[in-house]
Amino acid sequence: MRNIKLLLEYDGTNYVGWQRQQNGRSIQGEIEIVLKQILQESVNVIGAGRTDAGVHARGQAANFRTETKLDLLEIKGGLNGLLPEDIVAHEIEEAGLEFHSRYSAKEREYSYRIALTPSALLRNFSWHVKYSLSIELMQHAANVLIGTHDFGSFCKANSDVDNHSCIVSVASWEINETFLRFVIRANRFLHGMVRALVGTIVDLGRGYISFDEYLKIFEMKNRSEAGMSVPAKGLILEKVFY
Amino acid sequence: MRNIKLLLEYDGTNYVGWQRQQNGRSIQGEIEIVLKQILQESVNVIGAGRTDAGVHARGQAANFRTETKLDLLEIKGGLNGLLPEDIVAHEIEEAGLEFHSRYSAKEREYSYRIALTPSALLRNFSWHVKYSLSIELMQHAANVLIGTHDFGSFCKANSDVDNHSCIVSVASWEINETFLRFVIRANRFLHGMVRALVGTIVDLGRGYISFDEYLKIFEMKNRSEAGMSVPAKGLILEKVFY
Repeated sequence: MRNIKLLLEYDGTNYVGWQRQQNGRSIQGEIEIVLKQILQESVNVIGAGRTDAGVHARGQAANFRTETKLDLLEIKGGLNGLLPEDIVAHEIEEAGLEFHSRYSAKEREYSYRIALTPSALLRNFSWHVKYSLSIELMQHAANVLIGTHDFGSFCKANSDVDNHSCIVSVASWEINETFLRFVIRANRFLHGMVRALVGTIVDLGRGYISFDEYLKIFEMKNRSEAGMSVPAKGLILEKVFY
Repeated sequence: MRNIKLLLEYDGTNYVGWQRQQNGRSIQGEIEIVLKQILQESVNVIGAGRTDAGVHARGQAANFRTETKLDLLEIKGGLNGLLPEDIVAHEIEEAGLEFHSRYSAKEREYSYRIALTPSALLRNFSWHVKYSLSIELMQHAANVLIGTHDFGSFCKANSDVDNHSCIVSVASWEINETFLRFVIRANRFLHGMVRALVGTIVDLGRGYISFDEYLKIFEMKNRSEAGMSVPAKGLILEKVFY
């Protein structure tokens, strides 16, 4: 038995998300179909982050167990030859049998891109915000995320996770002329957390809520208090740390 | 009579190019259809660069003459409301009646992106090169472009232009881990020039031709001597200078 680790990039625009589903093409499903062809064996591909429909990845990590005798370059070549152009396997390596891309991950990093003017070239990779925004307030809002906090207010209501505590090590806004980019790194992310956080921070940045109200939303630990979930297309899973 | 100037961004992936054509949707055609709806008048939109099918623009300039009394913000709002998402009007302004987006342009700047590994996110905005490339040689090749030269070897054979002299003010390669980006600025570009230049420089960088052969291709002034035309999707019209 071998355990093989993959580093994947994908454009999530045309997928129902990472996870195999009945209602459409998923990243996991596409990779499993191609691996079955290459390995002549059905495998279960585990992803570090179960990205939602329309969410992208520059550095998703995944692993699968297999009995194949094919060498790694043959598998990688087969994957990139057979996968659609919007999914690419960048790296492949042997992992210890105990390695689990989701449970072994120490941290994950996501980015979210806001376009300050509509963008033709990045329309599938950014969310256009029309409001004028206080970057200073939004940076303050990011700063208070650092550390260990309960993110219950930023977790999808239908989530069955009880523990909402996350340890955030990086949270900051990068700014250029026409785009804002939020980068956040944490040991774990609750379902929908980044998109609810960005929605709430934008509410603050545009003056819809005050900083005190922003802090109170945290204390509520209740998803209905937070801002709207911003569109999936601006979100990229950048990297998984082991 | 008014003469109105536009600054446009577009994703050329799904178009037959800038220019109106019988065989499919063009950028010019889309803009003219929308302007007719807004202005209740047929206008001819002139673009600074007639980008080919699949070529993109971050800063295409265009102009049109109109009798409309609508103010600029109404026209811009109408354009961005009615144009497809892959064409955006970023700026609109009144120009002097003598202004002609193509003939008045002093310089144009293009970029060409090469992906060193296949890219899922930038697959429509880069060309994946599998060869290992000498960046040093390619930078030398860029350096000799600066100044006034005859680019006859890099002009599409069917072009009816007699004068092949161009004045290049910027030509350089930007490098990061996974992409190379060629930036070139000149007073004018011959049809197919950037793509033929990049193809020839890549031939040099991968060792298929020597530096002497590269220089000789220039002297030949014969398109059949140069390298292949690289794919349109890596090319972006960045800016037009007036």
